[in-house]
Amino acid sequence: MSSIQFLATADQLKQAQQARLKIRQGYDQPTAGLATGLTQVNMICVPEDWAWDFLLYAQRNPQSCPVLDVIEAGQYHTQLGEGIDIRTDFPKYHIWEHGQKTAEVTDISNIWQQQLKLVTFLIGCSFSFEADLMAAGIEVRHIADQKNVPMYLTNIACRSAGKISGQLVVSMRPMKAHQVPQAVQITAKVPKVHGAPVHIGSPHLLGIQDIYCPDFGDAPRILDDEIAVFWACGVTPQAAVMQSKIPFAISHAPGHMLITDIPDRTWSI
Amino acid sequence: MSSIQFLATADQLKQAQQARLKIRQGYDQPTAGLATGLTQVNMICVPEDWAWDFLLYAQRNPQSCPVLDVIEAGQYHTQLGEGIDIRTDFPKYHIWEHGQKTAEVTDISNIWQQQLKLVTFLIGCSFSFEADLMAAGIEVRHIADQKNVPMYLTNIACRSAGKISGQLVVSMRPMKAHQVPQAVQITAKVPKVHGAPVHIGSPHLLGIQDIYCPDFGDAPRILDDEIAVFWACGVTPQAAVMQSKIPFAISHAPGHMLITDIPDRTWSI
Repeated sequence: MSSIQFLATADQLKQAQQARLKIRQGYDQPTAGLATGLTQVNMICVPEDWAWDFLLYAQRNPQSCPVLDVIEAGQYHTQLGEGIDIRTDFPKYHIWEHGQKTAEVTDISNIWQQQLKLVTFLIGCSFSFEADLMAAGIEVRHIADQKNVPMYLTNIACRSAGKISGQLVVSMRPMKAHQVPQAVQITAKVPKVHGAPVHIGSPHLLGIQDIYCPDFGDAPRILDDEIAVFWACGVTPQAAVMQSKIPFAISHAPGHMLITDIPDRTWSI
Repeated sequence: MSSIQFLATADQLKQAQQARLKIRQGYDQPTAGLATGLTQVNMICVPEDWAWDFLLYAQRNPQSCPVLDVIEAGQYHTQLGEGIDIRTDFPKYHIWEHGQKTAEVTDISNIWQQQLKLVTFLIGCSFSFEADLMAAGIEVRHIADQKNVPMYLTNIACRSAGKISGQLVVSMRPMKAHQVPQAVQITAKVPKVHGAPVHIGSPHLLGIQDIYCPDFGDAPRILDDEIAVFWACGVTPQAAVMQSKIPFAISHAPGHMLITDIPDRTWSI
């Protein structure tokens, strides 16, 4: 956590609790724009004997995998929020076996009991800087359009760690050319939620063949005078799960995040 | 690493190599002020079966234990610098057995061969922001006096991880009251090398009984109109080694750091 630990207001905490309750009761949609001002996080759960390699992978790729909390084997509470149960409080989960996605579910309580003890990593999310982008007059298109953020598998290899390797995944937000410098400045200040963009313009240089066919999330709407701006994305661990063929893993579904009690501005340097 | 990876100049690289060579040949003094502009790092080596707990401890205490590199079991090179050998390139090492310091040496090559494979953590150091403090007109007293920086064990508990727990260690720099806000602003921008101070004034509130008797490093000289400013310190892992009674560990001697090839400003947000 940053050296400044802002406290959420009573109103914010109530919003977060209500959002988590709604999700626990079955809401299964993307979470961008929900409980504005509070940190949303990505998740990846791996077997205990893969946890060291994964923590090392995250340490070596901090821009895509900024670890906000590690939940020890078999446990499911986090200090990021009162009463959070990571088995029920994400809208949607993906189950992974040997690198293949084998199921999409809205609750992992049953699976949790059957599995060997899993270690859970909660990872920062670029949703944390979207309110600031909007406050600076930059339209966040997927929020305006009520869609999921578009995400792409790139040709950029992350630094591997032990048995884990994979490509960088990026999220994309289109904007006007004159807004790009502001977007860089705003997001550079929050390294624990992916920080500055990794790439601006030229999707083909990232190995993205069709910007309108994202690998995760919804197709974007991009205006003629807009430039695609790319940020490192917390779905990167899922690409590592696929490429490294981890025997078993659970992740959130991209864009379907956990809402915590931690104000976004906690991450600002 | 930050998203901006500055390259060292040819001159800086030469300075770093010369400093490491001098140290490899026996120079055993504190390193503050050497090879200005290049990152110096703390070290802690632990047995493989303590490495997960330690990496988790660092993740949970990022202000005192910002991990800049992890060197896997038995290895001794780091991507932080061409040709670095962590067994010879620190001026002085401490050997720890069951939490007790049992030896002080200037080379660990022999010990390295005898021991079970050790995992090495290289951790950011507040020396990285001292050039910027001086550039802002703030005298860094221990550099001016050619002493080692004073460091203190505090009464602040770090967040524990598995078998590892310990108190926060801080470094101290005295300065005029009007310089304190500048020092906070300058150092807040470099979270990977300890970031903003953790405490300003009132050493007794940190459990420091006599500011002139540091637990590590040299006694400071503090002028009448000066305030003690405290930063989280990369000696914190050594306090954890002591308190957790790790069966075997190797650390650098406080203030006797490894000089890398990475420019300090790489860590600036």
